[in-house]
Amino acid sequence: MEGYVELFDYIERNKSKYLDWAARLISHPSVSAHRSGLKECAEAVAELMDDAGLRPSVHGLENSGPVVLGTLNSEAHATLLLYNHYDVQPADPVEKWTTPPFSPTVRNGKLYGRGSADNKGNIAARLAAVDALLGVLGEVPVNLKMLVEGGEEVGSPGLEGFVNRERDRLFADGCIWEYGYRNRRGAPVVYLGVKGMLYVELEAAGSGKEVHSSWGAVVENPAWRLVQALNTVRAPDGTVLIEGFYYDVDYSGEELLDNLSLEDFDPPSNLLQRRGGKLLRTLLLEPTVNINGLSSGYQGPGSKTIIPATASAKLDFRIVPRQDPAEISRRLAEHLSKNGYDDLRMRVLQSYPAARTSPDSFMAKLVADTARDAYGVDPVVIPSGAASGPMYVITDILGIPCVSTGVGYHGSSVHGPDENIRVDDFVAGVKHMALVMLNFHRYMHLSE
Amino acid sequence: MEGYVELFDYIERNKSKYLDWAARLISHPSVSAHRSGLKECAEAVAELMDDAGLRPSVHGLENSGPVVLGTLNSEAHATLLLYNHYDVQPADPVEKWTTPPFSPTVRNGKLYGRGSADNKGNIAARLAAVDALLGVLGEVPVNLKMLVEGGEEVGSPGLEGFVNRERDRLFADGCIWEYGYRNRRGAPVVYLGVKGMLYVELEAAGSGKEVHSSWGAVVENPAWRLVQALNTVRAPDGTVLIEGFYYDVDYSGEELLDNLSLEDFDPPSNLLQRRGGKLLRTLLLEPTVNINGLSSGYQGPGSKTIIPATASAKLDFRIVPRQDPAEISRRLAEHLSKNGYDDLRMRVLQSYPAARTSPDSFMAKLVADTARDAYGVDPVVIPSGAASGPMYVITDILGIPCVSTGVGYHGSSVHGPDENIRVDDFVAGVKHMALVMLNFHRYMHLSE
Repeated sequence: MEGYVELFDYIERNKSKYLDWAARLISHPSVSAHRSGLKECAEAVAELMDDAGLRPSVHGLENSGPVVLGTLNSEAHATLLLYNHYDVQPADPVEKWTTPPFSPTVRNGKLYGRGSADNKGNIAARLAAVDALLGVLGEVPVNLKMLVEGGEEVGSPGLEGFVNRERDRLFADGCIWEYGYRNRRGAPVVYLGVKGMLYVELEAAGSGKEVHSSWGAVVENPAWRLVQALNTVRAPDGTVLIEGFYYDVDYSGEELLDNLSLEDFDPPSNLLQRRGGKLLRTLLLEPTVNINGLSSGYQGPGSKTIIPATASAKLDFRIVPRQDPAEISRRLAEHLSKNGYDDLRMRVLQSYPAARTSPDSFMAKLVADTARDAYGVDPVVIPSGAASGPMYVITDILGIPCVSTGVGYHGSSVHGPDENIRVDDFVAGVKHMALVMLNFHRYMHLSE
Repeated sequence: MEGYVELFDYIERNKSKYLDWAARLISHPSVSAHRSGLKECAEAVAELMDDAGLRPSVHGLENSGPVVLGTLNSEAHATLLLYNHYDVQPADPVEKWTTPPFSPTVRNGKLYGRGSADNKGNIAARLAAVDALLGVLGEVPVNLKMLVEGGEEVGSPGLEGFVNRERDRLFADGCIWEYGYRNRRGAPVVYLGVKGMLYVELEAAGSGKEVHSSWGAVVENPAWRLVQALNTVRAPDGTVLIEGFYYDVDYSGEELLDNLSLEDFDPPSNLLQRRGGKLLRTLLLEPTVNINGLSSGYQGPGSKTIIPATASAKLDFRIVPRQDPAEISRRLAEHLSKNGYDDLRMRVLQSYPAARTSPDSFMAKLVADTARDAYGVDPVVIPSGAASGPMYVITDILGIPCVSTGVGYHGSSVHGPDENIRVDDFVAGVKHMALVMLNFHRYMHLSE
């Protein structure tokens, strides 16, 4: 720790500048679901890379926001890849924000704004680490490649193609994934994996137009069709009822959960009632299905008496290693058909597998050990987060170990209103990233 | 029929004026669900009554649009009550209308506009009948009372109170209810009753705020709660699963259905699959439950990964004679509680019983016989319509026979986009109403 005093001092002295870097990115409303503001935000990321000392290049994609690639070459025979994304979730319901989502604001030691935790605060922190190392040492003792995409929140549609095309250019020895946070006990959480994702929209089409609801006695109602079909997909205790859904599930890494409890993850209050109650295992290691939205017929004030023209649901399946999203999608279609619901239209909006890195990898050790130094607290290492992301492009396509950590905390309200990070966590996160870069080469060779 | 030549000629010659009366009312966007444009439309109805020769008075109600009452006194010892409403359903989805809903337009022999069939065309037709009788005979040979309310589409919240308060003033020997239509075979349909209504909103509240959907594995999702709860309320074949729901159901009048088929009612294409297949009986005589709308979470384009903050459904129960809406509401709450869903909030938006008049009453005979003369076709008399309305205030509170007929047709798209009536039906409807007024006294005394 003592060896880092100068570096840490430098970071503390420059924290306003680094926070401002985060704010510059947050002020861009880069909502990938609406395909808005992406190009402008990509340019802002490139500018920031340039300010921090990386050489940026912007790569347009056909079906997504551009990818921004930053590189910094050093003398070292070791290369660290950083993965982030500059796109964000929609900010609605906007009326629930205390200050506007795209007007970054610091109050009570917190930086508020859509993307502060997911994921723009992390882009800024990583570039700040580069700036600090250059400021203190005059160099970064590892080759850096920073890949910042613009489609993560909508399933990273162009990422796999880009990584396949640029495989040589992207090669590295290890990767830091986009996010992470400090739990209620103050411990930084280090993730060794993520869940995969199958996001589908189901639509029941009725007669195609609204009909007076007095016909409800004898006419198929698409809202009832949808309700009935959804009810066959999941049991009240959360179990997915699709045949074969759990066949390939891999529970390895469960032993890492022994010293943890669900409370460490600051769960919302209304937990599912399950027999057995292994909720932490369920959260981190089991696949699940969730309704993100329901839409049908009249939703305004008061009453309107109609049979809706159509009814639709948005569902996300969070899948785990060895589950193939295409296979799950096929099983879902088969399930609906077998249960008499093949009139429902199914549209796949996102589809990608899970990813995992071994706790014995040098990346796992490097990130955990440096977290201890940066935060002054023992980190918590978990086999997989509950959330999803296209980490498989790193672990499976590039074939390198990948670990996730970042500047959020348990109260960050990721994807919700008043998303925020704590300034102190942000500063610790900058220190952490600087230590990862500083020690990368040594850990990589320790493991050989 | 010959005796009516002069009267019918008069009506034909004045049809442009009478259509214009309908258009004057349609141009008011009197949407009771939004509580908008009601007072203005009530004034327009009063003006039209005055133009037609009735003495109007406007009665403000606390919880609904004003009631407009029109009277015309004759020498006869017989009084006919006319019930109508000037409020309409919301016009959304507005983008599905060929011409704007509140800009009445005649094209291809049809008058388009929200309220043309339900119920403003009928107000105009009844006043036109008065105008024609005064024009040809110089008098209307029956006392008239015309009650036009402004809250029918939201469950007539003030009507029962008004009728109770004004019981003496409203007393009559028989009543014509608001609506009716010609079926695909051209037969005017005469209704001897309506279903009742229990309209409820069910809401499942989650944690009260959106949560990242990665928590979906272990956190209660209000959308799933709602889907599960709704699924316990109704079987896929339409049967209502609430205990005791069918206890009090009265199937009398079924014999009137013998010569009819569902096709006469121009059903939408996607009928429920039911064993037994007595769909016509189900439509007209059985109670049912319908989903009017579902609302939860993210409904925009693309994907958003959240556990919704809340989920709600709008349901209408169409009930039949002897079913008490308060009792059904109690049974529904009990049902939800018994099935483990007492966390769902239930709000009653409309609640009133069904109504029926005997096929042997003088009103049933009068309306059927005069329909034959006005339309030149045998009418179809049915024990109850599939739709609902507060007819009980006439049959149960005032205690007089009540029959429904009107100027719509099978393609009127009531409550839907491009609502319309055919000009020829409108003219025949005016004739029909004039004949009802002309023959009322005679039929009333025939039945004594």
